[in-house]
Amino acid sequence: MRAVDIIEKKKHGHELNRAEIEFLIRGYVSGTVPDYQASAFLMACCFQPLTPKETADLTEVMRTSGDTIDLDGIKGYTVDKHSTGGVGDKTTLVLGPLVAACGVVVAKMSGRGLGHTGGTLDKLDAVEGMRTDLSEQEMAKIVNQVGVAVCGQTGNIVPADKKLYALRDVTATVEDTALIAASIMSKKLAIANQGLILDVKTGRGAFMKTLDASIALAQRMVEIGTLMGRDVMALVTDMDLPLGKSIGNALEVRESLMTLQGKGEADLVELCAELGSRLLVMAGKASSVEDGRKQILRAIEDGSGLKKLEEMVVAQGGSLKSLHNQKIAANTVEVLSVTNGYVASMDALSFGHAAMKLGAGRETKEEKIDLEVGIEVHKKTGDSVKAGESLATVYYNRADRLEEVKSQILGSYTFSASKVAKPPIILAEVTKDSVFKF
Amino acid sequence: MRAVDIIEKKKHGHELNRAEIEFLIRGYVSGTVPDYQASAFLMACCFQPLTPKETADLTEVMRTSGDTIDLDGIKGYTVDKHSTGGVGDKTTLVLGPLVAACGVVVAKMSGRGLGHTGGTLDKLDAVEGMRTDLSEQEMAKIVNQVGVAVCGQTGNIVPADKKLYALRDVTATVEDTALIAASIMSKKLAIANQGLILDVKTGRGAFMKTLDASIALAQRMVEIGTLMGRDVMALVTDMDLPLGKSIGNALEVRESLMTLQGKGEADLVELCAELGSRLLVMAGKASSVEDGRKQILRAIEDGSGLKKLEEMVVAQGGSLKSLHNQKIAANTVEVLSVTNGYVASMDALSFGHAAMKLGAGRETKEEKIDLEVGIEVHKKTGDSVKAGESLATVYYNRADRLEEVKSQILGSYTFSASKVAKPPIILAEVTKDSVFKF
Repeated sequence: MRAVDIIEKKKHGHELNRAEIEFLIRGYVSGTVPDYQASAFLMACCFQPLTPKETADLTEVMRTSGDTIDLDGIKGYTVDKHSTGGVGDKTTLVLGPLVAACGVVVAKMSGRGLGHTGGTLDKLDAVEGMRTDLSEQEMAKIVNQVGVAVCGQTGNIVPADKKLYALRDVTATVEDTALIAASIMSKKLAIANQGLILDVKTGRGAFMKTLDASIALAQRMVEIGTLMGRDVMALVTDMDLPLGKSIGNALEVRESLMTLQGKGEADLVELCAELGSRLLVMAGKASSVEDGRKQILRAIEDGSGLKKLEEMVVAQGGSLKSLHNQKIAANTVEVLSVTNGYVASMDALSFGHAAMKLGAGRETKEEKIDLEVGIEVHKKTGDSVKAGESLATVYYNRADRLEEVKSQILGSYTFSASKVAKPPIILAEVTKDSVFKF
Repeated sequence: MRAVDIIEKKKHGHELNRAEIEFLIRGYVSGTVPDYQASAFLMACCFQPLTPKETADLTEVMRTSGDTIDLDGIKGYTVDKHSTGGVGDKTTLVLGPLVAACGVVVAKMSGRGLGHTGGTLDKLDAVEGMRTDLSEQEMAKIVNQVGVAVCGQTGNIVPADKKLYALRDVTATVEDTALIAASIMSKKLAIANQGLILDVKTGRGAFMKTLDASIALAQRMVEIGTLMGRDVMALVTDMDLPLGKSIGNALEVRESLMTLQGKGEADLVELCAELGSRLLVMAGKASSVEDGRKQILRAIEDGSGLKKLEEMVVAQGGSLKSLHNQKIAANTVEVLSVTNGYVASMDALSFGHAAMKLGAGRETKEEKIDLEVGIEVHKKTGDSVKAGESLATVYYNRADRLEEVKSQILGSYTFSASKVAKPPIILAEVTKDSVFKF
């Protein structure tokens, strides 16, 4: 077998078999296939899209390129949620405990934030003592005891993705739906959860900017997971606006607690109810999505979700005192409206960038982040607003880019004199059998 | 400027400007743009074909990547002929002297053969003492004195093409018309001839298998040359059959001499007359193609073409005795027809491969070739044939692959009971203004 022949075959639009994909990808990871052949192959894939079978094969070859986590020590049907990344997305901190409170086991491997999107591990750093570098054994023990645990990526998980992603990044081959789907799913499927719900973000603050592109990505990922024997479905959800009201690590932990205490923003509660209810149905704990919603909302009302979060924090070495008393930057400044009317639109991406400039996120993987800083959003699309009223509060420690941050936030809003409808958070549902646009 | 942005732009089908092409190609040659970006770019070019402007820019950037030969010391309008490579193609040895005999200056840079195609420099090696490693000064002196000289590629001509071609070869990006055109033209235009005629071979023994693909390549090359201020045109000519009657180096020198002595095969004479007449028109030495044909044929009849070849050989240090007494392998075997009728078709590629197996050509650049061996073809498409009559004579020194060679030659023929027309040699003419299919 020769790499050049495999590239040629793909270039002419013929379907590759598993052995050919294995030859190329394993060869690239081990160094026998040079990067210039891998990049030519990736570019050919952008013009001759990978078929469902090819995408599943690629995912499996990538998934098994390093360590996998089999969750053998964990009892029960385990579930996971994956978000494609957004601004103010603290869903995991709320959803995980709620689902666990409803009796479904959540073994979650999370990541760190990059660019304008945040990461769950960074948010958990805002809880003193909290450990996320759990071994497989520790993870199993905590999940069995509490019902939920969140850890970082351990060991040598999917090295093929790291190498391929770095190459795609410099060869203009990042934006291909099948390659993105294979990249995400190879990592999600490396941990042996039986059920998986994908939260595919769409809009200005998301990687995928249009609903159709987001649905296409969701379809490819559901297809892959299904072909590989998992229960997988996806919701396509709005990311034109930041999710909930806060952006920044300690601020988001505080908002998560408030949400579990029944004082959450409507969009975040709705998203957790919609994602959670479907996980409960998957796991056989709810008879319908409607039944699942009721259970999730009840776990907020009765405080059982909050209790699960506290149990998890304690089990992972975190301080409850720190959890409930988040250190927020003392310096604040308000971004004031200059007009009367209604918020017509806003741009989550600008909020993400603004938070990053404050130090809440990192531009490169090596950067340190400031857990205390961020933005609290008071006015979102559909809200009425008066001139001089605060649109958002900026929490900062360093003032050097403050003016830039303020104008970026203000500039991301548009206003309307007439009433504007609140945009829906859930836009589409993708299952293995159907696509439903709400 | 970043390579990844240039690749992205091309991937989305936007036209690159000269600076962007320069950044990528110069960077690749100098090592600041890595090969994995160059290969991703090349693959993108296969799906988003380079525009005429981009192709001309790429050619110019490649052309000036190393030394160029300005021919400053040569008086008069200089011309060159380039063939895309064929089997039995000894045109340069016949055409060069004929054109020079008609008073047009020919400064020709030739190459060596690879695979099933032969090279002029290898054929000239069959003349003892003949030097083709001429310096620019020697070249100018001989051309001024004789009117024609043939040299090998000297110095560091178009290093970008060497590097790009090696990369294309292993990344399945060889077969792209614009990239092929840029590769050929960057080398042809590195030598400052004012007039250039391209002999684009088409058919089984050619790189381009179909007439349409060959015309498309001819158009791109004529376009590039014209944009760069040269007089360029192309003939698309048949390479389903070997050209003339012999394949192999000494055999082809012998056939060239016979052709210049008026005993040439019709197809070779016709090709030289059609190419040569157009070069005479270009140089202002003929009033029409018809007038040019007459002059070329007269230079055969009156022996002035032969005289020019002899002068050139002497000027380049070659032995006239050796020129006229070619050492041909003493061992021969005939390939006999097993049927009565007419030759319906034959496959130049098989003849090229058969000659290579005898040692007349090389499979890799490093291989040595045997100048004495080859094939003489007695029956070509349209000829009548009787069972037991010889189709071709094989001249060999090593017998180890002889049976294979014989069956490859015989197997490449098909026969017909009814009369078959002789196929034309000239199939199309491509000028900067028009395409004419004959």
